[in-house]
Amino acid sequence: MNETKTQIAAAKAGVITPAMKRVADIERLSPEAVRDEVACGRMVIPANPRHARLLATGIGIAATCKVNANIGRSPERSDEAGELDKLRLCVQYGADTVMDLSVGGRLNEMRGRIIAESPLPVGTVPLYQAADAVEDVTTLAEDDFLEVIRTQAEEGVDFMTVHCGLLSTMLPLAANRMMGIVSRGGALMARWMAHHRRENPLYTRFDDILAICRAHDVTLSLGDGLRPGCLADASDEAQFAELDVLGELTLRCREADVQVMIEGPGHVPFDQIAMNVEREQRVCREAPFYVLGPVVTDIAPGYDHITSAIGATAAAYAGAALLCYVTPKEHLGLPGPEDVRAGIIAYKIAAHAADVARRRPGARDRDDAMACARFNFEWDNQFKLSLDPQRAIEYFCASNPDLTPEQRDHCSMCGAKLCAIKSSRALGGRGSGGGA
Amino acid sequence: MNETKTQIAAAKAGVITPAMKRVADIERLSPEAVRDEVACGRMVIPANPRHARLLATGIGIAATCKVNANIGRSPERSDEAGELDKLRLCVQYGADTVMDLSVGGRLNEMRGRIIAESPLPVGTVPLYQAADAVEDVTTLAEDDFLEVIRTQAEEGVDFMTVHCGLLSTMLPLAANRMMGIVSRGGALMARWMAHHRRENPLYTRFDDILAICRAHDVTLSLGDGLRPGCLADASDEAQFAELDVLGELTLRCREADVQVMIEGPGHVPFDQIAMNVEREQRVCREAPFYVLGPVVTDIAPGYDHITSAIGATAAAYAGAALLCYVTPKEHLGLPGPEDVRAGIIAYKIAAHAADVARRRPGARDRDDAMACARFNFEWDNQFKLSLDPQRAIEYFCASNPDLTPEQRDHCSMCGAKLCAIKSSRALGGRGSGGGA
Repeated sequence: MNETKTQIAAAKAGVITPAMKRVADIERLSPEAVRDEVACGRMVIPANPRHARLLATGIGIAATCKVNANIGRSPERSDEAGELDKLRLCVQYGADTVMDLSVGGRLNEMRGRIIAESPLPVGTVPLYQAADAVEDVTTLAEDDFLEVIRTQAEEGVDFMTVHCGLLSTMLPLAANRMMGIVSRGGALMARWMAHHRRENPLYTRFDDILAICRAHDVTLSLGDGLRPGCLADASDEAQFAELDVLGELTLRCREADVQVMIEGPGHVPFDQIAMNVEREQRVCREAPFYVLGPVVTDIAPGYDHITSAIGATAAAYAGAALLCYVTPKEHLGLPGPEDVRAGIIAYKIAAHAADVARRRPGARDRDDAMACARFNFEWDNQFKLSLDPQRAIEYFCASNPDLTPEQRDHCSMCGAKLCAIKSSRALGGRGSGGGA
Repeated sequence: MNETKTQIAAAKAGVITPAMKRVADIERLSPEAVRDEVACGRMVIPANPRHARLLATGIGIAATCKVNANIGRSPERSDEAGELDKLRLCVQYGADTVMDLSVGGRLNEMRGRIIAESPLPVGTVPLYQAADAVEDVTTLAEDDFLEVIRTQAEEGVDFMTVHCGLLSTMLPLAANRMMGIVSRGGALMARWMAHHRRENPLYTRFDDILAICRAHDVTLSLGDGLRPGCLADASDEAQFAELDVLGELTLRCREADVQVMIEGPGHVPFDQIAMNVEREQRVCREAPFYVLGPVVTDIAPGYDHITSAIGATAAAYAGAALLCYVTPKEHLGLPGPEDVRAGIIAYKIAAHAADVARRRPGARDRDDAMACARFNFEWDNQFKLSLDPQRAIEYFCASNPDLTPEQRDHCSMCGAKLCAIKSSRALGGRGSGGGA
């Protein structure tokens, strides 16, 4: 695999790869446009050649907004079969990428099965496996971090989160926060640095990481170890100090022909979201922004798929390219299958709403088809056009148990006599094919 | 009751009423500030003197953003007891106002019981009762509409939606839309006008309506009969033609010492929401804007509490004062109790996120308290600070069935070894009372 040419290397050389062609077809872009976006780093196509079943996906401002779903074992919950079921739910409900965040158990086998089965790009946080292998992260040597990255790259991982922007000088900034460091990877590296009184090895050894990623076309997702964990810590000095380092590393990735995207917050008040996206775009030279939420309030555990879908829509509208879902179980425990479903649908809503708002070509077609189906009481069509047909059918049937198919020219919300659409259809409306 | 002085009349006369005092206490405003906001019409306090159990609430840009929940019987579903249960849920989960949209059955009794029991301002759409009383709305005479308004005002209704801005000249505009008219009230008035070839009586008899509302201090909520029913119809000529009439009627309300707010869309792409709010504020001279959602995509039936909470947050951030909830059953059927709960919480999130984003004094206090509770693994405190404690507890227990109280220094999401907060606490953080 030493002669793998990365997508960005190919693009810079003027080559249009099969992956670029596929992305162009899906995104209604010309292959040349996709190539140019990849060449300049505004789009990434995470596609490790070892990932046999992969269907290539483009992530960047020129493409539709994408959704990532996290799955993976926790040491205290779930099993391999359960996580593979979640992977199938990710595909069924339309996630665009999936991250295996497993810790505990046989990690290589879990990941191997996910890569073998997934048509979606698979991401990981190699640091988790490194830390999982030992009792205490501080016992790891610098090379240990690199070895895990190499192993996972050789296995076919398409993109990896590495927390290389968190430097030792930033630890006092984090200590002064309300909630310190809430990123698992960030907290682990901070402990390692504090213990050894040395700089972050993921930063000092960044050239070695680049060499591995270039060899296997692994896309780097530069992690935000200092993402805010509450509204109070948003947009602070710690967060932006790390972002500046990520900006510097972005350029080094591109020089090394390694694809790169940038991870972002976290917990951010609604009024600061666009600013955060714009700042990332400026500091990181338009590298695709991969945001986690952000949640726009801290007071709704059990509903953080909603608090964060609100933030994700605003982020995507401002230019974020990939949205990492948050499930209803966030802040409470490991998500189950129903949480995965709820998280994905909430994020499909956010991504789609932003695509419509950014006026991407054709983005509203499905909404318009739904509007016509509603106006014509075509319930089956409405269900078919839904993000979650099964849920729509279930709710409709539960709310209208007595309606025969012939009576479905209204629903139980208004009843037959006061149904607005029934009244309105008599007066016209383009949806019915009539109109004035 | 002929000598009732409306809140706005009192405010104009320089009087601070008990209702204004209460609002000032809740909103951390001075009584004088509340009085001045009411006097100029930027705030309304819907408070019919006949509504004995009412606790007065202020709705306007100077106050925190409020949430309305719709309840009420449908001819095909639910019963009186069920709707009173929903009212209790509204109070329990923190709705600020409630509308009884019942049709079918003994409407006066239903409404009477809701008013008797509700500490929240109660709103109605009198047109529904008028239409419900006959087989066909076109058989109603002009006086019939007024009679229902008078009856309901005398019973103690605090605010009423009247669809008086939809004029006969606008019907061709609506007929040219994808979905025509989707407002129940709008569609009924359109049918009446088309049948009689006469102008909207709620417009031509507006002075009579004002006289009734002044006598009972009923706050008018000027309905948007032409609100868009799909993204394709948003911000169109029909919608804004009606808004212009509402602007004219706003001034007539204020002259007549009648409190007034304005209802707004509906279905609006995310990028058009701020513009819609700003336009309403300009055309209707800063009258409180009462928005329904808006939903930001049409393709997620079963999840419209989410699609619309996204739009509601953006609207509230832009200046909307009252958010009408949308439940997961929207577009599918009448909501049940769990839907009411889901709708209210989604909207509490939206309203609160906007209050934080608008930097209202103290708005973030509860978020900050939650952040500290999280950093200190104070689970009981986290539950207490949650918008829906019961749900948070339920999810936590389901996800962490094996944790003893002593082991609760982590959760099943990361497990004990990789818990970021555990690692981070060792390094500082203000939330723990330590810090650098």
